[in-house]
Amino acid sequence: MKLGGFLRLSLAVFGAAPIFAYAQDASPLRNVPARSIPVPATVSLEMQRIIAAPPSLNRSAPTTKDEWKARKEAGAALSLKALPALRERLGVQVENKVIAGVNCYVVTPNSVPEQNRNRLLVHFHGGYYVFFPGESGTKEAILMAGYGHMKVISVDYRMPPDFPYPAGLDDAVAVWKEAVKMVAPANIAVFGTSAGGGMTLALVLRAKQEGLSLPAAIAPGTPAADLTKSSDTYFTNEQVDNSIVSYEPIGEAAAKLYANGHDLRDPLLSPVYGDFHGFPPAILTSGTRDLQLSDAVRVHRKLRQAGVEAQLQVFEGQSHAQYLSNDLAPETKEAFDEIANFFDRHLGK
Amino acid sequence: MKLGGFLRLSLAVFGAAPIFAYAQDASPLRNVPARSIPVPATVSLEMQRIIAAPPSLNRSAPTTKDEWKARKEAGAALSLKALPALRERLGVQVENKVIAGVNCYVVTPNSVPEQNRNRLLVHFHGGYYVFFPGESGTKEAILMAGYGHMKVISVDYRMPPDFPYPAGLDDAVAVWKEAVKMVAPANIAVFGTSAGGGMTLALVLRAKQEGLSLPAAIAPGTPAADLTKSSDTYFTNEQVDNSIVSYEPIGEAAAKLYANGHDLRDPLLSPVYGDFHGFPPAILTSGTRDLQLSDAVRVHRKLRQAGVEAQLQVFEGQSHAQYLSNDLAPETKEAFDEIANFFDRHLGK
Repeated sequence: MKLGGFLRLSLAVFGAAPIFAYAQDASPLRNVPARSIPVPATVSLEMQRIIAAPPSLNRSAPTTKDEWKARKEAGAALSLKALPALRERLGVQVENKVIAGVNCYVVTPNSVPEQNRNRLLVHFHGGYYVFFPGESGTKEAILMAGYGHMKVISVDYRMPPDFPYPAGLDDAVAVWKEAVKMVAPANIAVFGTSAGGGMTLALVLRAKQEGLSLPAAIAPGTPAADLTKSSDTYFTNEQVDNSIVSYEPIGEAAAKLYANGHDLRDPLLSPVYGDFHGFPPAILTSGTRDLQLSDAVRVHRKLRQAGVEAQLQVFEGQSHAQYLSNDLAPETKEAFDEIANFFDRHLGK
Repeated sequence: MKLGGFLRLSLAVFGAAPIFAYAQDASPLRNVPARSIPVPATVSLEMQRIIAAPPSLNRSAPTTKDEWKARKEAGAALSLKALPALRERLGVQVENKVIAGVNCYVVTPNSVPEQNRNRLLVHFHGGYYVFFPGESGTKEAILMAGYGHMKVISVDYRMPPDFPYPAGLDDAVAVWKEAVKMVAPANIAVFGTSAGGGMTLALVLRAKQEGLSLPAAIAPGTPAADLTKSSDTYFTNEQVDNSIVSYEPIGEAAAKLYANGHDLRDPLLSPVYGDFHGFPPAILTSGTRDLQLSDAVRVHRKLRQAGVEAQLQVFEGQSHAQYLSNDLAPETKEAFDEIANFFDRHLGK
């Protein structure tokens, strides 16, 4: 009688000696065969289109400064084109402003309700700490300002290849020091996705180190919390994710370019290795196909272990940062409404 | 110049026309190559052992009543063996008791702190609504009573092949009606994992339909919220999960055996299709490798869409229900401490 599957269920769910499980095969590698994965039918049609897109394979990483810059400029130009219509749909105005010597974009909703007039959000864009310079990095700030009806300062922090770590984080800290002079820190939240989520966490670690005020809440979206390839979903969701697809080659190359010889496990580069005690309440966002789902999960657990109020929201079938992909997808509004609601509960007025 | 990966990131993170993504390949299937996945180093050694165990492949489903019963009995015998030592380690006593004509097990911690003396938890065990009859289904109740220091009634609901749906749910409702006579419903939480999580959600849907009192909180652990193969992680985590491994053949066969001809999309069989308005606060637990992670994620989103307070906790690298596998793993205590903390915040005294 073949009992394997049932006994495994029994072992897994109702616990017997784990030694049994080793009887057949002592290899610690999980060998998973090739598969073809359909698009889930339970998400919106807009999200189904995003999920149906094939991943970009055979990618290469830039190797010289000029190659990095050329790729950065090409992407920025493409991203910029979509912004005027986005600002129009979301009902926001964007103004370029230098704060503490750092180039910033102030995103202001056309209509700000009374309870949000003394509130401020600080935003760090994503893009491996390398891409989306200037105004091209304002998409998420526009979505947050539009859906959350709060003013946002989006920080155009300095980036490699010319300005590796810690230049960008220094800029983040400099803007933070000015922001708390504009509005009480109890009325400010900080957010960002991917590298912007990592920067959000690193800013709080630096603020703790320097004895600065902390924000009242943070929203690290699928944060780049570990620049090494340690998170399990880098393996389980490789090529399942159609957004960033795999750690190599771009993620790995960009991490080294940004770190510029510093240890990738430095908590200011990989915040999951930091001390989260005293952190403000946090809401994390990810998707089931996200290559960096484990980063969000590990940060969530570490925050909870440190006694911090922390919420995790995960969206069905979404790859890395796809809650930012299409402002017309209902899941996009849902994600930002949740973040806005979380900020509303934690920010002073 | 090869821009593919970067443009995809740009499209995904900073949104341009999704039509671009369709240019290379119009197939909606994601083709993922075979891979070998290492054990994550960031979880406890106990959890690394659980994750390192190979999945049971080439499983078969029972086809006759006698085959189902034989498999059920073999598994129950195996599970029962581990229980005396578990009760000892967790410091609980178990007493067999018939409540409303339903066989139950009352799990009482040796020490119950003052604030928990008027509180009660109701538990439904997992096992595809087929396995773990009698006392063999009490493992999770022992863990919850031991870590949460609260009394638990574990319901030995009737199961197929002799008693398909709705017999088990009828038993759940009957015990619920008695429980609210013992302790005020504001002081009661309901929990269970896998099928037990599905039963927890179905009980609340039935209680709403019948105008019964609702529990003050629920903890559906990686709930069987959709008996059809609709959740995305049934595909993305197939064979990545080493606990229940795949939907076919056991999950599919057990779903049909339990439903006994009823539509699998009936909300009392697949609660994710139900109306969650008015549900009590809920905490959901899953893992990044869980075959049913999407069920937990979809339930979490639907609860939040209905305005219900709902927490999601996901553990790194864990397959289905592995937070129950080894009571000595720190992740097990962590998961149950979170649930106990959630209950403590929502239950009256």
